[in-house]
Amino acid sequence: MNELERLIGRIVDRVNVNLREPAFNVGPYVLGTIPLDQFAKFYAFYGLTDQHPFHFQFCNSALAGSYFLGKCSVDHSVLYKTDVRGDELKKKGDVFASHGMKIPLHDDEMIRIKDSWLIKNLVHNNSHDPESPEEFSIKNTVSMHYANIHGAPVEGCFIGPYATVDLTTLRNCIVGTYSYVQTGELVHRHVVAGRIWVRAGDVFEFNYQYPAEVLERYVHLVQGKRPEGEMIDFVESRKQDFERLFQEFKSESATTIPAGTALSRYTVVKGETEIGENVLVAQRAYLENAKLGRGANVQENCYIINSQLEGFNVTAHGGKIIHARMGKKIFVGFNSFLRGTAANSLKVGDECIVMPHTIIDLEEPLEIPPRHLVWGYIRNRRELEGHSIALQKLSRVKNLVELGSMRFEGSGKECVKALQHRIEHILEENGAFFEKNVKKGHAQKNQNISYNIFQPHPEGPLKGIYPCMDIRP
Amino acid sequence: MNELERLIGRIVDRVNVNLREPAFNVGPYVLGTIPLDQFAKFYAFYGLTDQHPFHFQFCNSALAGSYFLGKCSVDHSVLYKTDVRGDELKKKGDVFASHGMKIPLHDDEMIRIKDSWLIKNLVHNNSHDPESPEEFSIKNTVSMHYANIHGAPVEGCFIGPYATVDLTTLRNCIVGTYSYVQTGELVHRHVVAGRIWVRAGDVFEFNYQYPAEVLERYVHLVQGKRPEGEMIDFVESRKQDFERLFQEFKSESATTIPAGTALSRYTVVKGETEIGENVLVAQRAYLENAKLGRGANVQENCYIINSQLEGFNVTAHGGKIIHARMGKKIFVGFNSFLRGTAANSLKVGDECIVMPHTIIDLEEPLEIPPRHLVWGYIRNRRELEGHSIALQKLSRVKNLVELGSMRFEGSGKECVKALQHRIEHILEENGAFFEKNVKKGHAQKNQNISYNIFQPHPEGPLKGIYPCMDIRP
Repeated sequence: MNELERLIGRIVDRVNVNLREPAFNVGPYVLGTIPLDQFAKFYAFYGLTDQHPFHFQFCNSALAGSYFLGKCSVDHSVLYKTDVRGDELKKKGDVFASHGMKIPLHDDEMIRIKDSWLIKNLVHNNSHDPESPEEFSIKNTVSMHYANIHGAPVEGCFIGPYATVDLTTLRNCIVGTYSYVQTGELVHRHVVAGRIWVRAGDVFEFNYQYPAEVLERYVHLVQGKRPEGEMIDFVESRKQDFERLFQEFKSESATTIPAGTALSRYTVVKGETEIGENVLVAQRAYLENAKLGRGANVQENCYIINSQLEGFNVTAHGGKIIHARMGKKIFVGFNSFLRGTAANSLKVGDECIVMPHTIIDLEEPLEIPPRHLVWGYIRNRRELEGHSIALQKLSRVKNLVELGSMRFEGSGKECVKALQHRIEHILEENGAFFEKNVKKGHAQKNQNISYNIFQPHPEGPLKGIYPCMDIRP
Repeated sequence: MNELERLIGRIVDRVNVNLREPAFNVGPYVLGTIPLDQFAKFYAFYGLTDQHPFHFQFCNSALAGSYFLGKCSVDHSVLYKTDVRGDELKKKGDVFASHGMKIPLHDDEMIRIKDSWLIKNLVHNNSHDPESPEEFSIKNTVSMHYANIHGAPVEGCFIGPYATVDLTTLRNCIVGTYSYVQTGELVHRHVVAGRIWVRAGDVFEFNYQYPAEVLERYVHLVQGKRPEGEMIDFVESRKQDFERLFQEFKSESATTIPAGTALSRYTVVKGETEIGENVLVAQRAYLENAKLGRGANVQENCYIINSQLEGFNVTAHGGKIIHARMGKKIFVGFNSFLRGTAANSLKVGDECIVMPHTIIDLEEPLEIPPRHLVWGYIRNRRELEGHSIALQKLSRVKNLVELGSMRFEGSGKECVKALQHRIEHILEENGAFFEKNVKKGHAQKNQNISYNIFQPHPEGPLKGIYPCMDIRP
């Protein structure tokens, strides 16, 4: 047995120990799902800018195809084509406000990944755990294809494909396929597949449950197999376009971009694509005949195809928008799948909020009026009615509203406020409001990144394992 | 002043302190010769194989375009497009024989470069200094374009362009442009430009002095300018061909090579080029219409154009062979420039030894008979007579032979023996005699290298300086 097999076995053991209570065995989900040769086939890379304090430590890990930015350590872990962004890490001296307390940071915050298996994940670091503000920790965890670990420290967890854990601290939890969890803190919970769950303390709670047949069609996971479904097919069929980006050391983009805009060199750009000012397009995004208005952002693993974003749009990690005309300041949540066609196009009005993990897959043209909240599975006008609510109407909800398998409890007003506040925050962080050198965000800070490429041991007993590295300014 | 300027100033100060005796100021040779922006423009890279123990440490240095293999540390130094090979480093437990003593190694040998400025150098590591066998040290030294530092620890030195210091330990020395020094140990010496000097203790000594007008034509250095001359023009005019190699992350070579052969992906291959078995072609070599027979090697910065090497040929670092037919087991020494033309081609007989830094620039066709030693400046048959001697004849020399400005003293027999022994050693080390998995050398060990790319700070006060890195298995 070589070191890579030993490492994978070790991770499985560690996670299983954590999940011993429901006696969940992550082994079949991990072992054999990626041929071991794949790990020696791809380089990993990290970005340097003069805008982000950095410190990288990698030890006894397989990191094929992964990308790192900011301060980050990875020990005894397998990261496969995973983006670990560290561009919102808190800094020494910052004061972190949480639950009415003011917590000063004694050190720069660092992402620490240990004894974990992350495959095609997006890890973003705006962590809200007040207990260890200097450390955003991912430990003893298996996280499957295209999951988002978003400011969410996790320990002893299994996170299914296309699941998102967002501003939540999880310990010994199972989060099912395509579940979205934003609940603060969870311990020893099994969140079933397709549950969309937002909870803000006692203030409000949103729940939606996907029907099994929808998950079956779009994304589902069977033990020992790779995830399957139309969402997977969609991504897989565009995989080749990315390959050439990773072949060239510097790619000369034919796309001209304005001064305040960042277009990652690891973005696919095809067809007639236009990019406006203060736009952020992250690595592994995919643009084809896309018009991106001022202040729009297209995050990691997003696809914008035959579509227009009018401006100040947030397309969160993994969002896909096809044949759509999106008005101004629209939020499209994580891993949403908005698929119009040339004949059945989608139009979304200004300031709509598309909840994370929403599937709109049209069989007729559809127009969503401005300032609506949208969720769940929508194919036509009739289904839209059962899966949307005007923000104004939601603001008036004081206790409860139920619509199909959506149940909202608590203060609608606070919910709308929280969502809108977050959208403002994201736009601000991403540099959408940049003007005359003020309000710099990722779009401006990420323009001048240098990419550093590192590789695993190419042969021998350590094949596929990366050397131990320590990199600081 | 930014950190890079401060670093360069620091190196100049350190070297000047070492060269205070002849009061030599390296400042004008260093300051301003490379625009500072260039240092932020190119990546550096290191190779990993499972054949070479590695450990890299880089700190507060500018490393643009440089390549590293093996165990190596670089501190407070500027390395610009310099290859540092560490594939013949001695290992812990090895016993190094020198001057009749047996010196056991307490640790793996490491290359240590400190407070130095190396530009377009080739550093090879087969160090013969018995005093610190665990450390091959380059310290307080300025070394100019295309110099070779070949197993030669140097401290407090200025090494001119196209100079070679070979198996020599130098302290506080100036080695002039295109000088070749292989003398054991030198302290406080100024070796004038164009001196070819080989000395083996009291056994033999070879001296040749290039006329000033030849240096003027081919390579010379004026304070504050880049080196000039036809040798520089030759290399500069082919620079573009290398650029594309450095643009692509992996280059798919169209050239098929036999199993026991290594062709660096950083080699330019053009025209009708054929490569035989057990051939080693190093990075930054240039092949155009080249036929390389079994066991030939083409080292760093070599150019083989419209030429055939019949087999077991050694073309040492920086050797250039144009329009030539080279017989079997011919040695072409460092930075030699053998330039035939289609009309005036060069033919060299088997087992000839072309001394390092030989210039053959033909104005008529020329044939060099087998088993001859050749040196100096040769344009025609008449000049060949004054710059060559049959090895058999040299073997009979007991005290002295003089030919033009060549003077040989001592035992010709021992000289021929030493040269032939070294050629065998090089062929063996390079894997020319590999068969059935026995006698592995660089050609076999360097086949599966993974290249790791790292970059300097792209902006800010540290622009052009590389982050501090520590990389180990």
